[in-house]
Amino acid sequence: MTARPDEAQILNAWLANAGPWERAVREGRIESRQLVTDRAIVEAVLARAPRRVIDLGCGEGWLAHALAAKGIEVIGVDAVPALIDAASVQGGDFRVISYEQIAAGALREQADVVVCNFSLLGDASVSGLLAAVPGLLAPGGVLLVQTLHPLAVATDEPYSDGWRQGSWIGCGDGFGQPAPWYFRTLGSWLAAFATAGLQLHSLAEPVHPHTGRPASVIFMAGAS
Amino acid sequence: MTARPDEAQILNAWLANAGPWERAVREGRIESRQLVTDRAIVEAVLARAPRRVIDLGCGEGWLAHALAAKGIEVIGVDAVPALIDAASVQGGDFRVISYEQIAAGALREQADVVVCNFSLLGDASVSGLLAAVPGLLAPGGVLLVQTLHPLAVATDEPYSDGWRQGSWIGCGDGFGQPAPWYFRTLGSWLAAFATAGLQLHSLAEPVHPHTGRPASVIFMAGAS
Repeated sequence: MTARPDEAQILNAWLANAGPWERAVREGRIESRQLVTDRAIVEAVLARAPRRVIDLGCGEGWLAHALAAKGIEVIGVDAVPALIDAASVQGGDFRVISYEQIAAGALREQADVVVCNFSLLGDASVSGLLAAVPGLLAPGGVLLVQTLHPLAVATDEPYSDGWRQGSWIGCGDGFGQPAPWYFRTLGSWLAAFATAGLQLHSLAEPVHPHTGRPASVIFMAGAS
Repeated sequence: MTARPDEAQILNAWLANAGPWERAVREGRIESRQLVTDRAIVEAVLARAPRRVIDLGCGEGWLAHALAAKGIEVIGVDAVPALIDAASVQGGDFRVISYEQIAAGALREQADVVVCNFSLLGDASVSGLLAAVPGLLAPGGVLLVQTLHPLAVATDEPYSDGWRQGSWIGCGDGFGQPAPWYFRTLGSWLAAFATAGLQLHSLAEPVHPHTGRPASVIFMAGAS
């Protein structure tokens, strides 16, 4: 599978910004994560009482470590070696694997929860990854995806799928070029799940305490 | 089943405003309907190629007549006798039945599509109606619900379920007291479907050509 230019830009931006990103997460610089979305995804995973979790796009590993601290077996994967190095300092099962490799069958394990926490940023790369998810789910397992709420972002832009310019605003210093990211409407997220053989079970919308509006959306889907 | 005060207010408001409402629809006074949502729901129904449709909360019957003109057998039901009288002038199968009566089993027919076009306005009355919908679906049949997009309305109010004050703004003259209506988040709509034994298949978000933002949401669900 050949990555499209935009898909490659995403990975390149994370390769180039792994250091400042790790600091931003460790120092709790991103307000919406501190106030709402970190806890929301931890609670959504724990509510499934999983024995094993696969964290796709685990980054510097905060979520994997939080879940491991609850006695859950966690496999964290990310395409960025520097982030996996940072995650591995505290121990744990972390692996450098790209979404394209997972789409091609590189991950053989199954889990009760596959979680993607703000880690689905591309177009074709995400479609390919999602198609592999049913094969990663143990019987009764679910995919949990937390992402920007399509209707809470970019309200001055047309509500239609497409590439959008990224930003590191609010993440602190030291960042270089931001990556583009692929915007999907709610309907397109559901269609992407359906195409991948995944059926939406529920949808949570964690509300930001300052705005009273959704800070994110968490989709829960199972094999259809 | 005893209606809660707010539920009764909804029906009372429609009983009192049936005349001006019929005029507003017939004269095409509601811009978002003219530009977007009328066509969106007609196309969503036709895409299912149904033999028979049940139109719940059919009002003055425009949708039922539009579908009947395509050769579809349509049963239109509404709790407001004046609206059913208006719908019946052009002929067709229109019946005065309340949602509470449907919840209690008053409708025996099954259809390939059950459609609710901006007609689910209450709390408990809607839950009761939805619970009866699986029994109204022929094998392979679906429920189509068009409603205000939860994230496109009342953006200055907290994003949580609850009663909201209605309005006849934009509908023309002659209206009396508006009815309250029950706001549901997207997550709550999905949960309401799940509770009723309905599984969301897809979600469409017709975009208003002037704003570029969703004018409504159309849920499609089948028996789970």
